[in-house]
Amino acid sequence: MIRPQLATMLAFLLTDATVDASLLSELVKEGARRTFNRITVDGETSTNDMVLVLANGAAGGPRLTPGGKAFQSFREALFDAMHRLALAIVHDGEGRTKVVEIRVQGVRRVTQAEKIAFRVAHSPLVKTAIFGEDANWGRVMSALGDAGVTFDPRHVTIAFDDVVVVDGGMKVPETTDAQLKEVLRKPEFAIVIDLHRGSEQVSVYTTDLSYDYVKINASYRS
Amino acid sequence: MIRPQLATMLAFLLTDATVDASLLSELVKEGARRTFNRITVDGETSTNDMVLVLANGAAGGPRLTPGGKAFQSFREALFDAMHRLALAIVHDGEGRTKVVEIRVQGVRRVTQAEKIAFRVAHSPLVKTAIFGEDANWGRVMSALGDAGVTFDPRHVTIAFDDVVVVDGGMKVPETTDAQLKEVLRKPEFAIVIDLHRGSEQVSVYTTDLSYDYVKINASYRS
Repeated sequence: MIRPQLATMLAFLLTDATVDASLLSELVKEGARRTFNRITVDGETSTNDMVLVLANGAAGGPRLTPGGKAFQSFREALFDAMHRLALAIVHDGEGRTKVVEIRVQGVRRVTQAEKIAFRVAHSPLVKTAIFGEDANWGRVMSALGDAGVTFDPRHVTIAFDDVVVVDGGMKVPETTDAQLKEVLRKPEFAIVIDLHRGSEQVSVYTTDLSYDYVKINASYRS
Repeated sequence: MIRPQLATMLAFLLTDATVDASLLSELVKEGARRTFNRITVDGETSTNDMVLVLANGAAGGPRLTPGGKAFQSFREALFDAMHRLALAIVHDGEGRTKVVEIRVQGVRRVTQAEKIAFRVAHSPLVKTAIFGEDANWGRVMSALGDAGVTFDPRHVTIAFDDVVVVDGGMKVPETTDAQLKEVLRKPEFAIVIDLHRGSEQVSVYTTDLSYDYVKINASYRS
């Protein structure tokens, strides 16, 4: 039951940097949008999640101000920590045998890229194909077509890690099953979808759909 | 891979009634909306589905006109046939052990009722609970809350067939586990959700999410 927005997940981050509450609050919102809100196990949300960042200024450095070099370093470090915590949740996903990045690029708007990435990440057919270690690009393409975003299928590229399986909307004949199998066997890999329509990019992290997912959630007694 | 809109499904209906193509076309659209487009196995759509109704007028009766008694009978018979064909698809759902009607009532608009019914029907947690024969109304309530439709949880009623488990947003203390178990054990039953906000009602038919669903879709080779 994990697709934060947010879902039964309490995250606490502590820092000794000197940063105003209002600035930190903005950073946390941006960070949560880019990290905790871009993971999903099964698309199920719940009611009691939160991310808290506490800063006590004990490091004694200068107060952070937007745009400065110290601010950039702090922002990167914070987002990196949030990203790692978010990924840890995916690794704990019910019955997961794989952690997969759904990277959608070449899209005009971030919201469109998110829509597509979540549609693919929530597809039971894509998730079971990942569990079965089958590079089923047809299921990925089919989920794309149902994401509610307009695109030209003739310009779509799909790759599993760096193995391109679809280019210009067509199967790449040179790509071999052995190359794909090597990627799919890994516990972590990326499905990279490029629509070649814009410059935005979003990554959503998800799991496969396994027997154990069904077992864990079907044997639970309410 | 079945949530028509439409998905790898070819339906043909034949009639010897005398009915104009334009009138029949309207009926087919309305019928498909109410029947074939209100079933879902796993929310996955595909590209090559259709419903055809052919009328040859061989019965020799008068030409059907909207509003007449013969028209009403024809309309009902057609929709009933379409409904039965649509249900047959759900019964063929990958790995299904249950067929469940998600009936959403007391809603202001049909589109809202559809949104809620499909959100519940596509919930992996609700589907695995059905597979596990657990009357997990909390998962139903949680899916409701994520359907994108405004409602007052204090006015929600949830029943499994005629066994009311939630009323006024609260667990009904008199309802026993034995009563619920009796419903959940059945191969077909209804989850009835009433929001008490309007007079529209929609039923969507779906399946559970079983080990065999995962097996069938994970062992398929592309």
